Amino acid sequence: MGKRTYAVIGMGAIGGYYGARLAAAGHAVHFLARSDADWVRRHGLVVTSPVGDVTLPEVDVYDDPAALPPVDVVLIGLKTTANGALGGLLAPVLESARRAGCPLPIIVPLQNGLGVEDQAAAAAPGAAVVGGMCFICCRKAGPGRIEHQDYGAVTLAEWTADGEPAGVTPAVEAVAGDLAGAGIDGQPQPDLLAARWRKLVWNVPFNGLSVVLDAGTDELVADPSARSLVADLMEEVVATSVACGHPVGDGFSGSMLAATESMIPYAPSMKADYDARRPLEIDAIYTAPVVAAHAAGRAVPHIEALERQLRFLDARNRA
Amino acid sequence: MGKRTYAVIGMGAIGGYYGARLAAAGHAVHFLARSDADWVRRHGLVVTSPVGDVTLPEVDVYDDPAALPPVDVVLIGLKTTANGALGGLLAPVLESARRAGCPLPIIVPLQNGLGVEDQAAAAAPGAAVVGGMCFICCRKAGPGRIEHQDYGAVTLAEWTADGEPAGVTPAVEAVAGDLAGAGIDGQPQPDLLAARWRKLVWNVPFNGLSVVLDAGTDELVADPSARSLVADLMEEVVATSVACGHPVGDGFSGSMLAATESMIPYAPSMKADYDARRPLEIDAIYTAPVVAAHAAGRAVPHIEALERQLRFLDARNRA
Repeated sequence: MGKRTYAVIGMGAIGGYYGARLAAAGHAVHFLARSDADWVRRHGLVVTSPVGDVTLPEVDVYDDPAALPPVDVVLIGLKTTANGALGGLLAPVLESARRAGCPLPIIVPLQNGLGVEDQAAAAAPGAAVVGGMCFICCRKAGPGRIEHQDYGAVTLAEWTADGEPAGVTPAVEAVAGDLAGAGIDGQPQPDLLAARWRKLVWNVPFNGLSVVLDAGTDELVADPSARSLVADLMEEVVATSVACGHPVGDGFSGSMLAATESMIPYAPSMKADYDARRPLEIDAIYTAPVVAAHAAGRAVPHIEALERQLRFLDARNRA
Repeated sequence: MGKRTYAVIGMGAIGGYYGARLAAAGHAVHFLARSDADWVRRHGLVVTSPVGDVTLPEVDVYDDPAALPPVDVVLIGLKTTANGALGGLLAPVLESARRAGCPLPIIVPLQNGLGVEDQAAAAAPGAAVVGGMCFICCRKAGPGRIEHQDYGAVTLAEWTADGEPAGVTPAVEAVAGDLAGAGIDGQPQPDLLAARWRKLVWNVPFNGLSVVLDAGTDELVADPSARSLVADLMEEVVATSVACGHPVGDGFSGSMLAATESMIPYAPSMKADYDARRPLEIDAIYTAPVVAAHAAGRAVPHIEALERQLRFLDARNRA
């Protein structure tokens, strides 16, 4: 049996990086791109990286999801702000698997925030959905050109309709194994929602404050006032994870603060989106957690205040 | 008996505006200035205003507080960030009254925030202190040049050591009467702290958010997210005023929001300070109210979050 085949939807920094690594490791990888499709078809895809560059002179790239061949795994590298398009993108992918008599592919949203697996599951009924949380600093430097700066681990956990932990499933092990074979640290987790809340412990303070205060993570942890605000935001996420029955674990926010101190100065993805006047991932990173907190009876005033500041800035930024 | 005499400490927008109006109404007004002293001595003081310009070709201006003659009233037009200097500025003023056998002057801080009368009282032991809250849009346009844009009313109430309402006292009536004679709406109030909290209902949301979101009051009330944040900040101030025993009154924050909607677009004083890289009045407008809320057992997470964002921005702005 050959290596698992992949489709990668979206050729931004995330889809481009992980897709290129899997292709370099010998997987057949089929990219679905929009603006980049022509350029990449002609010039290929290049990843520059401190852990080794990847140059793919010939890339199998599509601009129509109906043209993608059947695959074993679909990585979703879209921004969550584009998730309204998921149904239209995934329906032909599933249909081509059914027509070919293949099993439905595993759907892997490599996305930020809360609830993105529910959206993927609704767009791909019957398919297994494995959430992927990327701890990586990378950016799109131009068409077909990804600049990997640091890190790269992906936490993986399988979605369930009722939110109960799935345990480490075969689908999770399959994707984690493929990532490991491509030199990427794929970390299987039994409880998707606990893993999502852990990622939010970092994303909620640093994504939003980097935009509102126009600051890097290094400035935010070095200044006593900003750091104290970061800590309060983290604590609201932690308390909500407990109230929702998926606790992130004791001491987690403290270790995230310490880890951020030793990080290279880094602009979170929301800051990059803001500077490029792209829509901000407010729904996935702020609104969904706020809704979950309210449903669990928790007040999260710091998160809600930051959410509303971001809504104001996002609206003005794209006016 | 002649008209009451005034000293005005600080020749910024506030001190310059009200001092010039009182001088134009026939009061002897002695200004204490720093950077402007020489220029104003030579060229005079000009106020441009939609309700009538004031041109004072000859102004009695000092740069040494010990040189000021005895006066009946001292207006403090300093930013609260300079209040550490009050003791050194007021001691010679009081000393000159004592030496001349005059009663101690009424001290009138025309300043923002909470606790500024306590600071004035500590710096002028034995003198009556009347807090003045200015509802005015004006700015310093250059040396000896004040640009009055709109409004101008001053709420006046006498300070007491224990915070209990003083009622409308003779000192308050005296200053209010002088302002009225100069064409200014001086509004006597019985309860200084209730008046201070009312001013904070506007200052807390609009001063801070105008800096953090780089926005005018018009943008903040027009955007649904920012407006909702303004409303939550106002409600925390209102609830704290109740908890502290000096309620601002029912429906007050709603009327402030409505009034702001009909205001001309206006950059609050903290935004002007930030843009000019001057220190921000965070202690008086944010920290003192937060301390009062905690002492009264109230949580004010929105105010505290904004306070810390401002501390971060202020430190970076002046680094």
